[in-house]
Amino acid sequence: MLDLDRIAINQATTKTRWGFRASVEGYARHGVRQVGLWLDKLDECGLAEGKKILDANGMRVTGVNRAGPFVLDGSVPLSAAVDAARTAIDVTAELGADCLMVFPGGMPKGSRDLAGARGRFVSVAAALVDHARGTGVTLGLEPLHPMLAADRSVLNTMTEANDLCDALGPGVGIVVDVYHLWWDVRLKAEIARAGADRLVGFHVSDWLVPTRDLVFDRGMMGDGVIDNAQIRGWMEDAGYAGAVEVEIFSQADWWERDPDEVVRTSIERCQKYV
Amino acid sequence: MLDLDRIAINQATTKTRWGFRASVEGYARHGVRQVGLWLDKLDECGLAEGKKILDANGMRVTGVNRAGPFVLDGSVPLSAAVDAARTAIDVTAELGADCLMVFPGGMPKGSRDLAGARGRFVSVAAALVDHARGTGVTLGLEPLHPMLAADRSVLNTMTEANDLCDALGPGVGIVVDVYHLWWDVRLKAEIARAGADRLVGFHVSDWLVPTRDLVFDRGMMGDGVIDNAQIRGWMEDAGYAGAVEVEIFSQADWWERDPDEVVRTSIERCQKYV
Repeated sequence: MLDLDRIAINQATTKTRWGFRASVEGYARHGVRQVGLWLDKLDECGLAEGKKILDANGMRVTGVNRAGPFVLDGSVPLSAAVDAARTAIDVTAELGADCLMVFPGGMPKGSRDLAGARGRFVSVAAALVDHARGTGVTLGLEPLHPMLAADRSVLNTMTEANDLCDALGPGVGIVVDVYHLWWDVRLKAEIARAGADRLVGFHVSDWLVPTRDLVFDRGMMGDGVIDNAQIRGWMEDAGYAGAVEVEIFSQADWWERDPDEVVRTSIERCQKYV
Repeated sequence: MLDLDRIAINQATTKTRWGFRASVEGYARHGVRQVGLWLDKLDECGLAEGKKILDANGMRVTGVNRAGPFVLDGSVPLSAAVDAARTAIDVTAELGADCLMVFPGGMPKGSRDLAGARGRFVSVAAALVDHARGTGVTLGLEPLHPMLAADRSVLNTMTEANDLCDALGPGVGIVVDVYHLWWDVRLKAEIARAGADRLVGFHVSDWLVPTRDLVFDRGMMGDGVIDNAQIRGWMEDAGYAGAVEVEIFSQADWWERDPDEVVRTSIERCQKYV
């Protein structure tokens, strides 16, 4: 059974009802001492006050969400997105977090050039990695499900993430989210390829049948088809000993419930199904 | 520009408003002479009458949909599904079609064993391939999008399809559907790996942003993010010279329109975007 001190909750899991302070205090109330943090929530109180809240609750930060998207659609110049990412790297260093989640974004509006978008993201990541190394921050690459390639992220498999890590060198790691990757016949092999040095995060949830929305209909562990425990086994066989983080986007179900119930259920399900 | 004699229409594209006869006569009225056929539509008139309708309209059959699903959830015994598939092979031979589409199905209800479901499908395909060879029919493996792995098909990438072809030998080919595969960084390489002998079908449509349903919200070529022309180029570089087949499941849009408009638009868009 998973020890409580291995479990983290991502603030997205209680996104709609708990702000920054309420979520940190709420997770701590249930004995959870690791949080996946969102910068828009931290903005509610600012970095200095946020650190005080974290410290007062004995809470450490797993991943910081997020740098990006880096989409060239004219709404935000690429240079502004890269500058914002450098600032996010500095905040991540201040927080002593495991990694900064780097979110590529999808294809620019009206484009059909997927390879071009992927190539641009490689350039962006390369432009950030020196600053990350200088501050001791790891950039976390999280492949997102192929159904999100057009509008959310052009990084869609562990194979691509490992290839990108090969190209970029130290300072870059991989966050494995079962929701995005469970279907991939190469998942076990690519987790082994990544190994302990690259594996910097592990997100759990479940794939529901039916799935009613491409983004906001994730399930609680045990309610769907993903064998979370098997994938955790692959992670640990590869040397991963970090947090098991519950990240559930669920507009019609879990986001509508009492957050204390969500956290309690997350812990129970982690201990039963992960 | 794509010649009209390269274009096929799949009966799913006009599924809701045209039955077997109306679709064959409708496609022919617009100069299309290749049809992707569905056995449930053929059942409206039976094989003998169906062949007469096809012949009278100078229509040849690309793929026959379909054998499967082969899901072990107790609703249909595996042996019954395999027997039905053998019958479908015989019908495909009678029709002189390019291939019989073989549809694995998803995971049994309540199961989390994706690898087990994949293993069972390999056994099923192996059990069918001798009968296919004996009748001169090619079994068409069509990888479906990873978002359909749980409930529609456990075969989700060209890499898996090529590996399966390696394992099964002659009598098995691959149908490339851009909707399911456009996101895969390995697509070009795996199309080249498949080569002319294995590539037995090519389905076009488009990925819409946003996509509102995982199955029934495909777009018309040109309305989304897929570079259909680039992928056709990869197919032809690999030696494919067969049909370019329009297959669009679109509950809220194209299935609601006049089928003659759908066929006319399909042809125009093939000639502009594929």
